[in-house]
Amino acid sequence: MVNYQSAALDRTFAALSDPTRRALLARLDEEDGITVSELARPFPVSLPAIMKHLDVLSDAGLIEKTKSGRTVTCQLRAEPMKQAMTWLQHYERYWTEQLDRLAAFLEEDDSWPASPASPSSGASRRRRRSSSKPGRSPKR
Amino acid sequence: MVNYQSAALDRTFAALSDPTRRALLARLDEEDGITVSELARPFPVSLPAIMKHLDVLSDAGLIEKTKSGRTVTCQLRAEPMKQAMTWLQHYERYWTEQLDRLAAFLEEDDSWPASPASPSSGASRRRRRSSSKPGRSPKR
Repeated sequence: MVNYQSAALDRTFAALSDPTRRALLARLDEEDGITVSELARPFPVSLPAIMKHLDVLSDAGLIEKTKSGRTVTCQLRAEPMKQAMTWLQHYERYWTEQLDRLAAFLEEDDSWPASPASPSSGASRRRRRSSSKPGRSPKR
Repeated sequence: MVNYQSAALDRTFAALSDPTRRALLARLDEEDGITVSELARPFPVSLPAIMKHLDVLSDAGLIEKTKSGRTVTCQLRAEPMKQAMTWLQHYERYWTEQLDRLAAFLEEDDSWPASPASPSSGASRRRRRSSSKPGRSPKR
């Protein structure tokens, strides 16, 4: 089960690593259920190239292709993105902590005007800061 | 600027599309600033293979390598993931709407026990359902 989920996550992230594929998903988000040729029209690449991109998206479960006669339409299936987002959310604290440190720096800086509504916020920031895990310093 | 951001997003998603690279990030999340050989130890692949993975992560800005004498240590830099998460959040409504439809189905199903606390919730669900955008049906 873990391996299956990992393979699904591999396919989702790989499918999203190309700007044309992301743009195809954005196009389907605007207008779902359009034909492959309508989808391909705004892109400055060949129809076979677009079809290859659509195959990658389809293999990742991010779109569903439906054939009716000679016409193929595509539907967006965003659900695999949920697992990708859950994976990323685990790391969310790195950038929220970074904002927290910036706020703490600004509050501790004497040249920065103090907020009259929260005279003790500088002290509370310092407490929170000193309780953070040692050795973890997402600086960028 | 848009192209630069797109290229950064390409690199982030591509770096995250490999289970070993995701595991290396998870290892650094547990213990940041460890050496390359310590990082490589639990993985059943060669040190050169791990070093290639670390190069991909470094090129994506997801880790930072620091050399001190003959020792190279790695630090997690999760911030590029923020842009990836922002991109995914745009599609979040697809799976939240799916849960909403499931809830509406269960509430409308006569065999499902009605909640005594909210006798009108079935009707409110139906209203919300009928106002949803036509032609958008993330079914899976």
